[in-house]
Amino acid sequence: MTCTGLSAFPLTPIREDSVDERAFAAQVTRVAAAGVDSIAALGSTGVYPYLSRAERARVARVAVEHAGDVPVIVGVGALRTSHVLGHVDDATDAGASAVLLPAMSYHPLTDDDVVGLVETVAAHSPLPVIVYDNPGTTHVTFTPELYARVARVPGVASIKIPGVPTEPAAAREHVARIRGAVGESVTIGVSGDPFATAGLAAGCDAWYSVIAGTLPEVALRLARPALAGNAAEAEAENVRLAPLWRLFTEMGGSIRVIATIAELLGIAEQPCLPLPIRGLDGEQRRRVAAVLEALQIS
Amino acid sequence: MTCTGLSAFPLTPIREDSVDERAFAAQVTRVAAAGVDSIAALGSTGVYPYLSRAERARVARVAVEHAGDVPVIVGVGALRTSHVLGHVDDATDAGASAVLLPAMSYHPLTDDDVVGLVETVAAHSPLPVIVYDNPGTTHVTFTPELYARVARVPGVASIKIPGVPTEPAAAREHVARIRGAVGESVTIGVSGDPFATAGLAAGCDAWYSVIAGTLPEVALRLARPALAGNAAEAEAENVRLAPLWRLFTEMGGSIRVIATIAELLGIAEQPCLPLPIRGLDGEQRRRVAAVLEALQIS
Repeated sequence: MTCTGLSAFPLTPIREDSVDERAFAAQVTRVAAAGVDSIAALGSTGVYPYLSRAERARVARVAVEHAGDVPVIVGVGALRTSHVLGHVDDATDAGASAVLLPAMSYHPLTDDDVVGLVETVAAHSPLPVIVYDNPGTTHVTFTPELYARVARVPGVASIKIPGVPTEPAAAREHVARIRGAVGESVTIGVSGDPFATAGLAAGCDAWYSVIAGTLPEVALRLARPALAGNAAEAEAENVRLAPLWRLFTEMGGSIRVIATIAELLGIAEQPCLPLPIRGLDGEQRRRVAAVLEALQIS
Repeated sequence: MTCTGLSAFPLTPIREDSVDERAFAAQVTRVAAAGVDSIAALGSTGVYPYLSRAERARVARVAVEHAGDVPVIVGVGALRTSHVLGHVDDATDAGASAVLLPAMSYHPLTDDDVVGLVETVAAHSPLPVIVYDNPGTTHVTFTPELYARVARVPGVASIKIPGVPTEPAAAREHVARIRGAVGESVTIGVSGDPFATAGLAAGCDAWYSVIAGTLPEVALRLARPALAGNAAEAEAENVRLAPLWRLFTEMGGSIRVIATIAELLGIAEQPCLPLPIRGLDGEQRRRVAAVLEALQIS
């Protein structure tokens, strides 16, 4: 697969402390039908670090079975390298097209630790590796130098970067610096949905999108013009979606907002997050519902 | 058990991607013989989040079997509440005297999430619960209000706090504020070995100590006067150990330094940390060895 375009990160809904496979399968089917370029199961929104190896292997299989012709990326992150390799084997057996590798940490990792992890996984994996930089959850900070080191590892196909500056010139400079570090053969994908428009306009090749995993049509209305180079149309859509992005920042990240949206739209049963994470409370839920209504999302 | 005095947190040495049970057992025997007040297996230094449930259950059993009359605390942290409860069951079956509960996070937790976790675990656990506040690894920040909420949960016996200010008046004020929040029936234990002397002088009841897990005699020379209220003697020992504390801060936390000390002293084989965490490199190892020599630790 080419790691470009719109990649959708669906939730893994949890019901009574088990993966709700039926809800997950329905969501993958829906997202694939909408026409995204890839589906990434078991990303952060897919709550990968909360699941057992058996649950993750099963989620990978269900994703591939329901994605049709859409390539499936499977998250393989874990704190221990040997556990990561087990997840890579399971993803490969499930028929994944690529693996997504976060540098998960508990004790802080050095750059050498991160490079060693990427080298070990890439040498082991028959699939392309997408390196996942998400400091808000993994607490590893990638510098341009670290991007350059991991991009040189054979088998690394793409880097998923966190949000870029929203000011266009600053965004271009930021992405150009990363491009200079990783070269032309490794794609750069922006994440953090509120920054996607700026990132794509600044030269990112992919949008690794949380919202596309639950509301693929909403994401596509922004992604299609953005990926076609029609920055003005994309920006108009981005501005229209600002109330949604504000929910992400005001409610401590996207996971609780996305879970609530899935619950409100009947895509997942309430509650759908793994404890100890509780969903949004009554007043917050009403605010999410109001934003969906204002944006005519149903 | 009473959660007071010197609690020693041993490493769980890893050898060829498995727990080195022989090295771990020998270490527990050695620490127990030195006369610490409790041994805490599977703390952060015990690399609990890197181990499988089966490995952790086994480590808990080995710890209890080799601790003699010294009470054993077992770390039960995990990202998912149901996994934590499994670890509580295993710790109880192993004969633990208390469980240590970190608020481990990947997606950020709210205060309500943390309180819900503590309530669920305390209601499930037949053993006293020590709540573990370690923002450097768990990325959850406890406020005095959150301390007060978790201290009110029946079954919570102690709170392990991170380092206190080293200036005596500031340390007293800090510990007094926490005491005011948690009341008299829940003990307060300081962690972060460089802050132990200040914490004990300021009124903490316990020292949850990394160094005591590997160098119990070194820790006891500081803990005995500190716990007896002889602050001047403790401070003199603390000043003498400053080169060791400096290694902790300069080498990105205590885990790599302690692992290197264990390797240099023959307590664990090199390398003894779970990949992707690599041990210290040649020059750093030489600096650790030089500090051990200067402090006459062998």
